[in-house]
Amino acid sequence: MGSLLVGQSGGPTAVINATVYGVLKEGLKHPEITHLYGAIHGIDGVINENLFEVTKETNLENWQTTPGAILGSVRLRLKKYPEDLELYNKILEVFKKYDIEYFFYVGGNDSMDTCYKMDYFFKQVGYNCKVIGLPKTVDNDLVNTDHCPGYGSAAKIVSTMMAEIYHDTSVYRKGRVTIVEIMGRDAGWLTASTHLANINGNGPDLIYLPESPFDIDQFINDVKALYEKKKKVLVAVSEGIVDKDGKYILHYQTSSEGDSFGHLQLGGVALVLANTVSAKLKLPVRAIELNLPQRCAAHLASLTDVKESTKCGEFGVKSVLKNKSGYMVSMERVANYKIKYVLKPLDKIATMVKSFPLEWIINGNQISNEYVEYVLPLIQGESYPKFVNGLPVFAKISK
Amino acid sequence: MGSLLVGQSGGPTAVINATVYGVLKEGLKHPEITHLYGAIHGIDGVINENLFEVTKETNLENWQTTPGAILGSVRLRLKKYPEDLELYNKILEVFKKYDIEYFFYVGGNDSMDTCYKMDYFFKQVGYNCKVIGLPKTVDNDLVNTDHCPGYGSAAKIVSTMMAEIYHDTSVYRKGRVTIVEIMGRDAGWLTASTHLANINGNGPDLIYLPESPFDIDQFINDVKALYEKKKKVLVAVSEGIVDKDGKYILHYQTSSEGDSFGHLQLGGVALVLANTVSAKLKLPVRAIELNLPQRCAAHLASLTDVKESTKCGEFGVKSVLKNKSGYMVSMERVANYKIKYVLKPLDKIATMVKSFPLEWIINGNQISNEYVEYVLPLIQGESYPKFVNGLPVFAKISK
Repeated sequence: MGSLLVGQSGGPTAVINATVYGVLKEGLKHPEITHLYGAIHGIDGVINENLFEVTKETNLENWQTTPGAILGSVRLRLKKYPEDLELYNKILEVFKKYDIEYFFYVGGNDSMDTCYKMDYFFKQVGYNCKVIGLPKTVDNDLVNTDHCPGYGSAAKIVSTMMAEIYHDTSVYRKGRVTIVEIMGRDAGWLTASTHLANINGNGPDLIYLPESPFDIDQFINDVKALYEKKKKVLVAVSEGIVDKDGKYILHYQTSSEGDSFGHLQLGGVALVLANTVSAKLKLPVRAIELNLPQRCAAHLASLTDVKESTKCGEFGVKSVLKNKSGYMVSMERVANYKIKYVLKPLDKIATMVKSFPLEWIINGNQISNEYVEYVLPLIQGESYPKFVNGLPVFAKISK
Repeated sequence: MGSLLVGQSGGPTAVINATVYGVLKEGLKHPEITHLYGAIHGIDGVINENLFEVTKETNLENWQTTPGAILGSVRLRLKKYPEDLELYNKILEVFKKYDIEYFFYVGGNDSMDTCYKMDYFFKQVGYNCKVIGLPKTVDNDLVNTDHCPGYGSAAKIVSTMMAEIYHDTSVYRKGRVTIVEIMGRDAGWLTASTHLANINGNGPDLIYLPESPFDIDQFINDVKALYEKKKKVLVAVSEGIVDKDGKYILHYQTSSEGDSFGHLQLGGVALVLANTVSAKLKLPVRAIELNLPQRCAAHLASLTDVKESTKCGEFGVKSVLKNKSGYMVSMERVANYKIKYVLKPLDKIATMVKSFPLEWIINGNQISNEYVEYVLPLIQGESYPKFVNGLPVFAKISK
């Protein structure tokens, strides 16, 4: 008998709210869970006692199809107990006050690290609270899970937008190089998803991921050769591509005049490459940064992703009721694409990064069919939000 | 008895192909139309005799929901006959060879100008060809029509993405200024559509259109005041905003270091403003350019727009069969939002621009309810493309 608390952390996705919805829906079914709370802005809401109570009367309509983080998010990393002692004591005080026995945190690597440290702390001080991490990241870079909730939806909108950009940029007889920048500082999973559009013949010609060292001269040669052959060249590039010395291409000089960019929170690498193409090849070129719509386009999410994200939350609740603690809910793929929900120890996940497999990158600028087989099941089905009067209806709570 | 030729011109939209579909579907119904052709890359395809024949057997599936321009587009302005004589003679030669009696051109202001000049030419030389312009532009800036096909879909995706960006950027307790740049060099119609998101409380705080002179000091003051009040400030800005002297804000210095941008085909004004906010207010700021997805997001078009675009094409065919020539198909709004399709003389439309009404702009940074009443009917209903295996299926012809 005790209360449940769920929080969100790190960058939002189109489906992180579906996971919270899964936790709350399942949580409301079990009488041994006495109260349910959402932590407003994650750990920050715990520390400041800013909790949102959810009851059977709470309207959870549209939560599954709302982007962002309904409860609010936070970027705050805890040090390991007994460091950050004051913070831990405050957390314990609030947990005791609200009788929190079940704690869920939805997030990426850093959030799993927070989960791990909270679980460690509670065990050290002998406070009975079950801690479960729930995965989410459009980057798909969590280890020990087949894939991450949030990735399928991001891959679906990115590949769809890529196909649309192909159709838009191929209308003129005149040639053009179009460079599209995709999110992913350290891992190329999301950029790789642009290759899905190639299944229908409207994807990028060249795809560059951070995992494979980027050579700008080779890039210029590749663009030149393709332009001579087909005039319309479409390039997808990860924001985090680096050269063989590990230097971000984003930090290269950007034009013959020597402007330097990067002092703003703009991806910018597409612009750097576009400037280089313009300066070296004198070709018409356009840089496009897909930006936030990649991770918040709830208007076209993957139905598979929405369902799996929800189930991760539900499975988490079932697990804590079996006294499990210190785990992340993980997805195992079984034959013919069925997902088995399992628990993986948090200390085997926290702060680690699952890179895109090098063997799935061909010649540094193409993606293999193995990746297509891996990713296709994740984008199946279309999840649309409810539209009223022509506009999407998203859920909001007053924080 | 004669052949029909249809071409596309200018920048593509999510629904320009729906209009071509309307022309072809209707055209195929009438036995007096002996052959149907698409001009590949518009007038360029006429001059180079690059025509695509459409018959009852041609697969027109998915044409209504495919972005870009299936037939290809072109940016080519004709001078008035007898100038450009060689070009006109070539056009006449091809028209005679294929017995073209009905000519349709889908496009914006410049394309209507081309239509007007071709109609004038044919009349001058006594060649019997009926010429009809069919409107399309996401800019909504054609005169003598209530609105333009393409605008409703662009307004729908822009307001939807704006709402999603609101949810994404409001997750942290920490404040942030987010500046979103919208297409529209001369007219602010598309930027104004971001205001639609305010109906559901997830729209921008400040909206700047090219029609209202932009004062950068006032902008900084407005951002500062809003930031102090609510910490999250969301700004929508037209790429073409100008100051009281008519200078593009895009051409302002961009940071305290004096970098200059704009040598690439990037909108760039959001970046200029973000740099200014960063330099003068020292606030965290992010610049987002929505870029091409604004005009090619067929994955979420307005169903009303798709239907109207198709009907424009159909009405054009019915009109030429009544010997009408030298007109653009125009939409008149009648009570309770019904659209009456009518013809307007091309010379009253070509090269003119319908600006966003100044009386609908409040204080230079807000949009009035009159605009909402005007625009809401245009975004009603959701048009989705067919998805197969998780990916949108778009139509393509080999050019």
